Amino acid sequence: MDVTKIKNPRFLKNMSTKQLIELSADIRKFLIEKLSKTGGHIGPNLGVVELTIALHKVFDSPKDKLIWDVGHQSYVHKILTGRASEFDTLRQYKGLSGFPKRSESEHDVWETGHSSTSLSAAMGMAIARDLKGTDEYIVPIIGDGALTGGMALEALNHIGHEKKDIIVVLNDNEMSIAPNVGALHNVLGRLRTAGKYQWVKDELELLLKRIPAVGGKLAATAERIKDSLKYLLVSGVFFEELGFTYFGPVDGHNFDDLLENLHYAKKTKGPVLLHVITKKGKGYRPAENDKVGTWHGTGPYKIETGDFLKPVDAAPSWSELVSETVRKLARTDKRIVAITPAMPVGSKLEGFASEFPERMFDVGIAEQHATTLAAGLASQGMKPFLAIYSTFLQRAYDQVVHDVCRQNLNVFFAIDRAGLVGADGETHQGVFDIAFLRHIPNLVIMMPKDENEGQHMVFTAIQYDDGPIALRFPRGNGLGVKLDEELKKIPIGTWEVLREGRDLAILTFGTMISMALEAAEKLAKENISVKVVNARFIKPMDEAMLHDLLESNIPILTIEEAVLQGGFGSAVLEFAHDHGYHQTVINRMGIPDRFIEHGSVKELLNEIGLTTAHIIDRVKTMIPRKQKRA
Amino acid sequence: MDVTKIKNPRFLKNMSTKQLIELSADIRKFLIEKLSKTGGHIGPNLGVVELTIALHKVFDSPKDKLIWDVGHQSYVHKILTGRASEFDTLRQYKGLSGFPKRSESEHDVWETGHSSTSLSAAMGMAIARDLKGTDEYIVPIIGDGALTGGMALEALNHIGHEKKDIIVVLNDNEMSIAPNVGALHNVLGRLRTAGKYQWVKDELELLLKRIPAVGGKLAATAERIKDSLKYLLVSGVFFEELGFTYFGPVDGHNFDDLLENLHYAKKTKGPVLLHVITKKGKGYRPAENDKVGTWHGTGPYKIETGDFLKPVDAAPSWSELVSETVRKLARTDKRIVAITPAMPVGSKLEGFASEFPERMFDVGIAEQHATTLAAGLASQGMKPFLAIYSTFLQRAYDQVVHDVCRQNLNVFFAIDRAGLVGADGETHQGVFDIAFLRHIPNLVIMMPKDENEGQHMVFTAIQYDDGPIALRFPRGNGLGVKLDEELKKIPIGTWEVLREGRDLAILTFGTMISMALEAAEKLAKENISVKVVNARFIKPMDEAMLHDLLESNIPILTIEEAVLQGGFGSAVLEFAHDHGYHQTVINRMGIPDRFIEHGSVKELLNEIGLTTAHIIDRVKTMIPRKQKRA
Ligand SMILES: [Mg+2]
Ligand SMILES: [Mg+2]
Repeated sequence: MDVTKIKNPRFLKNMSTKQLIELSADIRKFLIEKLSKTGGHIGPNLGVVELTIALHKVFDSPKDKLIWDVGHQSYVHKILTGRASEFDTLRQYKGLSGFPKRSESEHDVWETGHSSTSLSAAMGMAIARDLKGTDEYIVPIIGDGALTGGMALEALNHIGHEKKDIIVVLNDNEMSIAPNVGALHNVLGRLRTAGKYQWVKDELELLLKRIPAVGGKLAATAERIKDSLKYLLVSGVFFEELGFTYFGPVDGHNFDDLLENLHYAKKTKGPVLLHVITKKGKGYRPAENDKVGTWHGTGPYKIETGDFLKPVDAAPSWSELVSETVRKLARTDKRIVAITPAMPVGSKLEGFASEFPERMFDVGIAEQHATTLAAGLASQGMKPFLAIYSTFLQRAYDQVVHDVCRQNLNVFFAIDRAGLVGADGETHQGVFDIAFLRHIPNLVIMMPKDENEGQHMVFTAIQYDDGPIALRFPRGNGLGVKLDEELKKIPIGTWEVLREGRDLAILTFGTMISMALEAAEKLAKENISVKVVNARFIKPMDEAMLHDLLESNIPILTIEEAVLQGGFGSAVLEFAHDHGYHQTVINRMGIPDRFIEHGSVKELLNEIGLTTAHIIDRVKTMIPRKQKRA
Repeated sequence: MDVTKIKNPRFLKNMSTKQLIELSADIRKFLIEKLSKTGGHIGPNLGVVELTIALHKVFDSPKDKLIWDVGHQSYVHKILTGRASEFDTLRQYKGLSGFPKRSESEHDVWETGHSSTSLSAAMGMAIARDLKGTDEYIVPIIGDGALTGGMALEALNHIGHEKKDIIVVLNDNEMSIAPNVGALHNVLGRLRTAGKYQWVKDELELLLKRIPAVGGKLAATAERIKDSLKYLLVSGVFFEELGFTYFGPVDGHNFDDLLENLHYAKKTKGPVLLHVITKKGKGYRPAENDKVGTWHGTGPYKIETGDFLKPVDAAPSWSELVSETVRKLARTDKRIVAITPAMPVGSKLEGFASEFPERMFDVGIAEQHATTLAAGLASQGMKPFLAIYSTFLQRAYDQVVHDVCRQNLNVFFAIDRAGLVGADGETHQGVFDIAFLRHIPNLVIMMPKDENEGQHMVFTAIQYDDGPIALRFPRGNGLGVKLDEELKKIPIGTWEVLREGRDLAILTFGTMISMALEAAEKLAKENISVKVVNARFIKPMDEAMLHDLLESNIPILTIEEAVLQGGFGSAVLEFAHDHGYHQTVINRMGIPDRFIEHGSVKELLNEIGLTTAHIIDRVKTMIPRKQKRA
């Protein structure tokens, strides 16, 4: 069928299994074609085609609440709820979001992006339902990877205790973004191999018949029984211990099994955990064969071959630069240990992992643990390198404050995807980290102007032994500059004048430097002389340079690809007024006080007003006297 | 023995059980006496006397690492490591900390205060040990309450997966601060009733003999077997599933049992979970009989009667004012649901809980879940009232950003203990919340000048339906002002002029207002006329009033009991410069860029420079011309 004709999921109610299978094929074809042009989270979505169809057939969305944990696997849901025709705009500026979005559809009842939130949301909705006396089903769909996030476990604990009617669908594809880690994963693995729960009784019977009624070897036998029984009973024991009724494991690509079990789940009182096994990338060979997570989220690709269409990058990615520099240093510095919360591929840690497997720890989706783990390592003289995305570091704010900075431990935070991230949109923009880190005592925060400075900052961070230090760097690739052979330390708290100027000083860092230099260049042609400073240390700032600047009393413009409230520009304002410079004209450019949606970084910067043209305009408003003189 | 003579725990090695029992009695006597004068966490410490002695007898601190989760139960550890003579200064300014402190002793290897961090720290220390090739034991001691915190579960998952040699001591006292909640607690409850793990084999044998070898009722029997076996095997199944070897439950007040099991644990490879049952308050009747948590942490008390010596407060506590006002409103507003992360007593929610048990949710130590649970409730039209301490809200930063504010949901954050908290010290100071909340879009933040305004703000928050709103209020009691009968809405973003003045304007809020008024009063006598503004909305600010003030160009002094970086004063600086007021003298007073230790709030404010005298001095430096004229 033409999936772009779908208006809502009601048509599924009367479909036969055969028709559902055909629909699945049509949806897969549609997804593979559309995403080959736009890119997107192809692997996760191909894995949940049957599951999503089955959920919409059995439940009545939007009355019943389908809550997609993480949310990047909601494309099939979007197709079934009438949004297929918008897929050409997927993840593009003003286009369809790659995540559930309440403003897009009444069927998107909960917005996600960060993982492990669905169970808490479901519990809130269930409590609301029961207080209001309505009767909708609440159905969070959570991946095996997301289940290791602490807040998901907090929620399971609460749901089990309160015995609310919630149907948790565990979408277990054996890997989240990277192959899964953690003991909990092993539990799920055993559930899988233990076979269907219904078999337990039969096997138990067989087993009991094999028990010798008497005998001297009873102890040993009992031990074996215990293990065998445990092996059987483990089917669901973990979840049943927490108060859930466990169904599964169910083949997530078999409609009969799915529908039957969903009907069971509907009839069951209290919390249910339905364990569904799916295959990520199902139905598209290159994605199915992916073992490391390359096909989790992609750019455009050639359907026939699975080749990515992205042009070969001249410059290495920032993640690669940082992780590979750390790897190099790890050869002589035995203190270095790498930690990633489930992002070994995104953080380009494969090289480090293969060279130093015993010094590489992927802790799964567990940012809090990752951070305090790093603190624990640092407390024993190690040098933990915590590779973490800016947006995910949000989840470890308290651990950064309470465990790392308060104890002033030598943790090296490598904050990846700092600044706007583009297509992933508002849940993933790395724009808050300066504002939520700058006020924490003891923490050094820096951002390089290019990858050469970046590698020196990695070296600086590793050499720095006076407390925690954070290196933030953007998503994507470096500028392609030449890398020095020899790594060197950059003195903490020193800035760098990139261009001299008499009329105004721009203080900026990282991604905004190129625009600032371009603006200065253009303004020079209008006889406006702008100084450009690489304010590479956001904390501590270069106080000597600030005093010089403020004493000269030329206007200062701060520019940052980060939120304005409490950001770098505010730090400059604070410094000026704290030191009695009450006359200086200081302007700040940055990200305003609202959430920034998806789109290309370029489009978003334009919308926000962070372009060379905007900088030029702002500079001109700041030096009216100069203009008059000209 | 005279416990003040103890220099280090080595003397324990040669002590007999009888001597250990005598020592326990001496330590209890010492604690009960000392804490009757200083106050402190009496209940938790009386519960771990034998456990702490046993740990120090079996392990060699500081080579072996004892890691006290939460840390308020480390008093016995402090006594055994030579700090008994300092107990007169416990939790007092410059005195002994109420928590582990690395600067106090080499035996304090990890600092805590917030719960659930010990397992991550232990894992970090274990990795460091194994990389360095040393052989120390790593022994985190974690309570049953702390175990429900998400990061503890993240760490259990990781430890189980990596199979590191770590001995986790689960100190299970059946209640954390308040009686425990959650499914995980039920698991522990079942473990307790199931008896010792060693019994399992014997009981299994008996059970198997009772199985009918044949018979038509096999299915039913098998079902019963399954349940019975599960009942038995559940001893440790939960933890064994995660990869731990489980020992226990052990009587935490019986030295022979404790020592025997600790020796077993030492000999076991891989992660061990030793389940110890203790009684909070053990050995002191009033604390033992406590069912709600009153004796968790106390002020001074009369030993003989257990009566608290604190004078009867004229004014109700802030927590009580807020929670009781919400309770009143809940009688007519059915949308209101109260949530606490394990602090029903501290947040004074007992009244609400008894009147609206079905609308009260204590989720245990689980701040992340609590926050997103609130978001889920709000998404369905409810009005969640999340009572949470400022310092613990740190743990839900991402949930505030990603789940509540990004979706602009009507969550009412009641941020208790905002500002300095005093004796609990640096892990608990509520000084970061303005800086970590102010940059989040959509959030309203307010703080009342007194409890009458406080009750109106509660009403305002409940009535406000345009998104999330936070009411921050200090620890302790109100000022004793009269409460209006009728509750009224305070227009969002409006400030209030408390005192007119021509020479300078003080913008402040909450606890600092009384000092500001006092300073203004005194300055008036020196012919300096100071305006005092109750800047009760920290966000959004009163823009009309700010424009008026800035246009008049009188100096502005902001004062806040919160960190200066990115705080309220910075918001004023941002506003001024964003609107072209580049000439105004603006000074900020607040908490400097370092962690603030324990002491009375008064002592700490004096150290920081936040007193009436400091304000007067600062004002004078800001208006030199006026002084010259005078
Ligand atoms: Mg998965
Ligand atoms: Mg407890």
